[in-house]
Amino acid sequence: MSVLPKSVEQVIEEFSRLPGVGPKSASRMAYHYIRSPNKDATKLASALNEMEENVKYCKHCFNVTDKEVCDICSSPLRKKSKLCVVEEPLDVVAFENSAVYDGLYFVLGGVISPAEGIGEEELRFKDLEKRVNELLGDTKEDEVEIEVIIATNPSLEGEATASYIIDLFKGLLKEGRVKITRLAMGLPTGADLEYADRLTLKRALEGRRGI
Amino acid sequence: MSVLPKSVEQVIEEFSRLPGVGPKSASRMAYHYIRSPNKDATKLASALNEMEENVKYCKHCFNVTDKEVCDICSSPLRKKSKLCVVEEPLDVVAFENSAVYDGLYFVLGGVISPAEGIGEEELRFKDLEKRVNELLGDTKEDEVEIEVIIATNPSLEGEATASYIIDLFKGLLKEGRVKITRLAMGLPTGADLEYADRLTLKRALEGRRGI
Repeated sequence: MSVLPKSVEQVIEEFSRLPGVGPKSASRMAYHYIRSPNKDATKLASALNEMEENVKYCKHCFNVTDKEVCDICSSPLRKKSKLCVVEEPLDVVAFENSAVYDGLYFVLGGVISPAEGIGEEELRFKDLEKRVNELLGDTKEDEVEIEVIIATNPSLEGEATASYIIDLFKGLLKEGRVKITRLAMGLPTGADLEYADRLTLKRALEGRRGI
Repeated sequence: MSVLPKSVEQVIEEFSRLPGVGPKSASRMAYHYIRSPNKDATKLASALNEMEENVKYCKHCFNVTDKEVCDICSSPLRKKSKLCVVEEPLDVVAFENSAVYDGLYFVLGGVISPAEGIGEEELRFKDLEKRVNELLGDTKEDEVEIEVIIATNPSLEGEATASYIIDLFKGLLKEGRVKITRLAMGLPTGADLEYADRLTLKRALEGRRGI
């Protein structure tokens, strides 16, 4: 005899698929919706359906959007000479929320991770090459016009992916047509030297600047 | 300019309403569904809708069910002489999963908590009295027939709620028609004496048994 109605078990099962959500939290979530007086479950359901219907990837940068070309790629205010390569759409959100960048993005869709079985083919390297060439197409032959800013995470996988991207543009780099940069590594604001790990300290030291 | 499509923002907003889910985790959850290749969002949506449509409270015990009377209350195998009073439906699940109890349940719907503005009126004390009288109705006048097992959580609020229940049945207790018991308190299996808190130790000592 099952204690729970089947429909509740199904909701729990679906919630359990979420990353970082175990069966206990999934049950708590389902019960939250059972107890909620204002039809929150229905609201979430229709929000999910609407998302599933409307959300697609921008054909230029592969960020999530509800248009063919996302607002950032189609904005005349964004500099077409900078392309910030990130792992995930949430990284774009992080940059945009801090309002520190005025160029374009490219969302790889992850990082090379042999441990998780994610190789080069799973990521959008071909599309990245195509995008850079597209952007170069608008510029004169003998100018450095595109700066590719590699903004993968400072993890092992992020580093491997960064190396792969550098390799990808070796030719264009030699020709002087692209410039490749990486985000600075060092101490984050508010950090405590005492608790910084060895690698962070090493990089903070390597990247030290004169005043 | 908003970075995210409106439909994604709506899903994130709905997820953020869940207890213990902050805006970051809510975003991660939404992106999980955007990335999922097999229409997981639609599956969750229809599971939620189905739950919203089908789930109701058992008219006897107020556990969640998809019938008028839940499987436990209608089972001929369950002892009608024991009524275990719990706070939430998830507590019933915990008991049932451990298969240690063969009586009936009653789900209060929470605990008395002045801090959260939950008074006696918000809980199902009236229904509890009614249910106990219903069960007594089937028995002879001069028998102790119902054992009310108080299984609220060992928290301050749980204790206060337990006292309230004891008060509720003072009359029937005097008449010898109900028996009231509480779950034993003490050390949980696998616990380390060294890390047990003062109150747990105190209760473990109070409840010690001869061998």
